Amino acid sequence: MMTAVNKGIDERIYNTIVTTNAQAPFYQLTGIQTRTLGPGWVEMAVMTEGKHGNPLGLIHGGLVSTLADAAMANAVRTTGKKGVTVHCDINFLASAPVGEEMIGRGRVDKAGSKIVFTSGEVVCGDKVIATCQGTFYVVGEI
Amino acid sequence: MMTAVNKGIDERIYNTIVTTNAQAPFYQLTGIQTRTLGPGWVEMAVMTEGKHGNPLGLIHGGLVSTLADAAMANAVRTTGKKGVTVHCDINFLASAPVGEEMIGRGRVDKAGSKIVFTSGEVVCGDKVIATCQGTFYVVGEI
Amino acid sequence: MMTAVNKGIDERIYNTIVTTNAQAPFYQLTGIQTRTLGPGWVEMAVMTEGKHGNPLGLIHGGLVSTLADAAMANAVRTTGKKGVTVHCDINFLASAPVGEEMIGRGRVDKAGSKIVFTSGEVVCGDKVIATCQGTFYVVGEI
Amino acid sequence: MMTAVNKGIDERIYNTIVTTNAQAPFYQLTGIQTRTLGPGWVEMAVMTEGKHGNPLGLIHGGLVSTLADAAMANAVRTTGKKGVTVHCDINFLASAPVGEEMIGRGRVDKAGSKIVFTSGEVVCGDKVIATCQGTFYVVGEI
Repeated sequence: MMTAVNKGIDERIYNTIVTTNAQAPFYQLTGIQTRTLGPGWVEMAVMTEGKHGNPLGLIHGGLVSTLADAAMANAVRTTGKKGVTVHCDINFLASAPVGEEMIGRGRVDKAGSKIVFTSGEVVCGDKVIATCQGTFYVVGEI
Repeated sequence: MMTAVNKGIDERIYNTIVTTNAQAPFYQLTGIQTRTLGPGWVEMAVMTEGKHGNPLGLIHGGLVSTLADAAMANAVRTTGKKGVTVHCDINFLASAPVGEEMIGRGRVDKAGSKIVFTSGEVVCGDKVIATCQGTFYVVGEI
Repeated sequence: MMTAVNKGIDERIYNTIVTTNAQAPFYQLTGIQTRTLGPGWVEMAVMTEGKHGNPLGLIHGGLVSTLADAAMANAVRTTGKKGVTVHCDINFLASAPVGEEMIGRGRVDKAGSKIVFTSGEVVCGDKVIATCQGTFYVVGEI
Repeated sequence: MMTAVNKGIDERIYNTIVTTNAQAPFYQLTGIQTRTLGPGWVEMAVMTEGKHGNPLGLIHGGLVSTLADAAMANAVRTTGKKGVTVHCDINFLASAPVGEEMIGRGRVDKAGSKIVFTSGEVVCGDKVIATCQGTFYVVGEI
């Protein structure tokens, strides 16, 4: 298992994010892990496997969407806010290969008191798999 | 296991969709099943379980996105076309409960020769969980 | 000039919406008018003209986006809430012809206390020009 | 009137884009001008005025959407391709002030032979008004 890295956020918030992500059932099911957390940005990662395949034999877009959503949602959490996804828009630039590490990067573009705006991308090495933007509604503090 | 229902599409295409969906690894992993196929529309379903949970203890939005994408992609397939997702936009209206059947409905709004436009929604009973729209690029015939 | 029709909303709110839309500079500039207002839904309209053209000689997508946004925003207002657009997603199914009435329909899918979810479409007669969905943040009452 | 700047694209394509934009009726109506064109990216600009106001007295989101769409569409054109907008998604981070120059930046994230993926943002000085992503279908060469 990958060890996450703290690039400058509050230690308590860091620990909460890393621990709850590691315990989150859907991340365990899909294999998504926390990689790096900074102020207003994160990297999440998943090793693509056969189990992520769609009917065409490619990595299912749902895994890419889940990684994109996870990256943007956790970017929100690095600001100390607990948010629920209001909307997510994703552009699928390329199909993802099996057997490679796929990275989801999320960043906060603007953190309002109630609405947080985010964007991000999903990559495999130099290949951009998807770009995304999302909005979150703040429901509390971490 | 649920049995799918054919509401009026070509039998060969119906069988291809049902069979390839049943064998698709990511649908097996997440528990998504084909339910009903009509001309230009489908219903896919998943029984929500603890394994679909996010760090907040709710059903992860990634499952909802996967179901929405699956419903729209398979609606495209009922027209006999093989398409890859270009873009997907999803609005999350409400959180999904654990232990209920969640239905994803997809429909084709316009089937161009190269671009297919779709929309849909994800529901649990009367509760709308999400609305979505997507676009697909046609790469071949089924 | 078209006369708007009230299909069942509070008369004070109806008058406020119709009057402020008629006075709104950007609607005057683009020619967008209020057509019908019901509880949680509206129809806005614009007669497409040469002045709405893009560099390809078609109606510019920006007019379609403006009409879609206007329809969804005013659907929110029929509920008595003042909202600002958080996000808008639009699928462009077909180009709009010059010299026809283009109708934007917006509807409220869910009116939360703080976030309102909407969707809609833009049509010219039977031809669907665009489908859209949007989210709004409630900033007050009308 | 602003003079556009060529930052490294083919002179014939540059002249075509600048000329057709200057003549495009909807850009004349709304006041949108071409500012800078580079390989795969552009800046378009508009001076916000009272005529762009919405019923709340702010700059209408439709102008922001039009500028965002224009920036992404022209970024596609710098690659020598003629494309029609398939989809546009826009996040509205802040309202735009009246009487300031509003800049729309568009860039090509991936130029496929048939589908071009783009993203961008709209800013007033240091203030980000909106972020956007869009997809375009290639219909020919410039």
